[in-house]
Amino acid sequence: MVSKQLPRLEVCLSPALLHLFDTKDTVVVIIDVFRATSTIAAALDNGAFQVLPVASVAECIAVSKSTPNSLSAGERDGRVAEGLQYGNSPLEYPREFIEGKTLVLTTTNGTRLLHMVQNADTIITGSFLNLSAVSEYLIAAGKNVLLGCAAWKDRFNLEDTLFAGAVINNVQSHFSINCDSARAAVHLFHQSKGAFLDFLKHSSHYNRLAAFGLVKDMEYCTTPDQHPVVPILKGKTLVVHK
Amino acid sequence: MVSKQLPRLEVCLSPALLHLFDTKDTVVVIIDVFRATSTIAAALDNGAFQVLPVASVAECIAVSKSTPNSLSAGERDGRVAEGLQYGNSPLEYPREFIEGKTLVLTTTNGTRLLHMVQNADTIITGSFLNLSAVSEYLIAAGKNVLLGCAAWKDRFNLEDTLFAGAVINNVQSHFSINCDSARAAVHLFHQSKGAFLDFLKHSSHYNRLAAFGLVKDMEYCTTPDQHPVVPILKGKTLVVHK
Repeated sequence: MVSKQLPRLEVCLSPALLHLFDTKDTVVVIIDVFRATSTIAAALDNGAFQVLPVASVAECIAVSKSTPNSLSAGERDGRVAEGLQYGNSPLEYPREFIEGKTLVLTTTNGTRLLHMVQNADTIITGSFLNLSAVSEYLIAAGKNVLLGCAAWKDRFNLEDTLFAGAVINNVQSHFSINCDSARAAVHLFHQSKGAFLDFLKHSSHYNRLAAFGLVKDMEYCTTPDQHPVVPILKGKTLVVHK
Repeated sequence: MVSKQLPRLEVCLSPALLHLFDTKDTVVVIIDVFRATSTIAAALDNGAFQVLPVASVAECIAVSKSTPNSLSAGERDGRVAEGLQYGNSPLEYPREFIEGKTLVLTTTNGTRLLHMVQNADTIITGSFLNLSAVSEYLIAAGKNVLLGCAAWKDRFNLEDTLFAGAVINNVQSHFSINCDSARAAVHLFHQSKGAFLDFLKHSSHYNRLAAFGLVKDMEYCTTPDQHPVVPILKGKTLVVHK
């Protein structure tokens, strides 16, 4: 798996470990499978003008108010957060609803990690919904890569790491990989045998979201390549990479 | 895997995540397979009077000087650290050498994590060399458990997590487990099919230690149950649990 000529690929399992990685000259992939980065892929593929990730509910309300044709979205504990208009489900944003609009989004983990990353070459977002598109982007870019798992309040989670493993499985021949987190992610990917939802039925987040009645969301979020776009951060805004 | 009546078992993948876990009323198992906790098991099983884990080389020298019948040990970059007498290999401490002596030990990761844990019910150390003894201790204790991986300078490593998975595989019916790190550890254990050294040949630490000529050490450290003792922290000292 190791070759010195190729760009480096590493996996950060939690925002609390981010300081251990050098993000300079690196493409950072923010991963929050359940569900921020799934929602971002769906909204942009369905024609959203842009997604504005913000850190807090208060900021979400303020930015949405000052941005024409926008809507505020975000959840806390599986429900639309107080003061916001919409939730954090990719199923809430079909084309007929979101096309041309700005989605101002705040979430517990995904948007937080996105704001923590400093000094990267490029920041994109990944989820099973855009697995192949992200993989192809990384190969074409030919730069160092950090796959950044949003985790759950800094705790390791299976779904983000599983997705990292799926990406590595697609791209590994193009990178130099000497990172045990990456190796573990690939092992988890192999253990899943591609049955992502079944694999994740024994995970903390599945249990938590299922208790909120969100099994259909998780089915959707684990079905690859339904939204083949690469959301890329330009300034403070996520747009579709062209 | 979840039952509310049973004590809790969790896995901490890196010292940098330790703050996320409540160690009160908990048995914490310090895991540094390559090689601090392997060396501790070997030395104590071979009759060492005690092992004194210390934080720095300077402290190691000072404590060893003031402790009768002791020796100072520790490595930096695969070699005996300057000023210390011995290294961090379990093979350096056969009975005829270590019996009755105090081993004053400092390492990059294992002894560091041991000093970071505050407020635990009990601290013990685990490695493949005492896998079954540790597993049986945890079942008999019937308390909450945190398996604490020493990692490598705060980076996730495969060998400590694999060992955590081996422990969980032995004890899981006795605990309530709702921790994705624990689930991942068990997946890695299954992926290894019990061929621990082969599995770890694709790991950062294997590569690093092999470059120092330490393959024999790693063979030894991945062969289970050669030193069936439970090292337990009493005050500042590790002794054999009776």
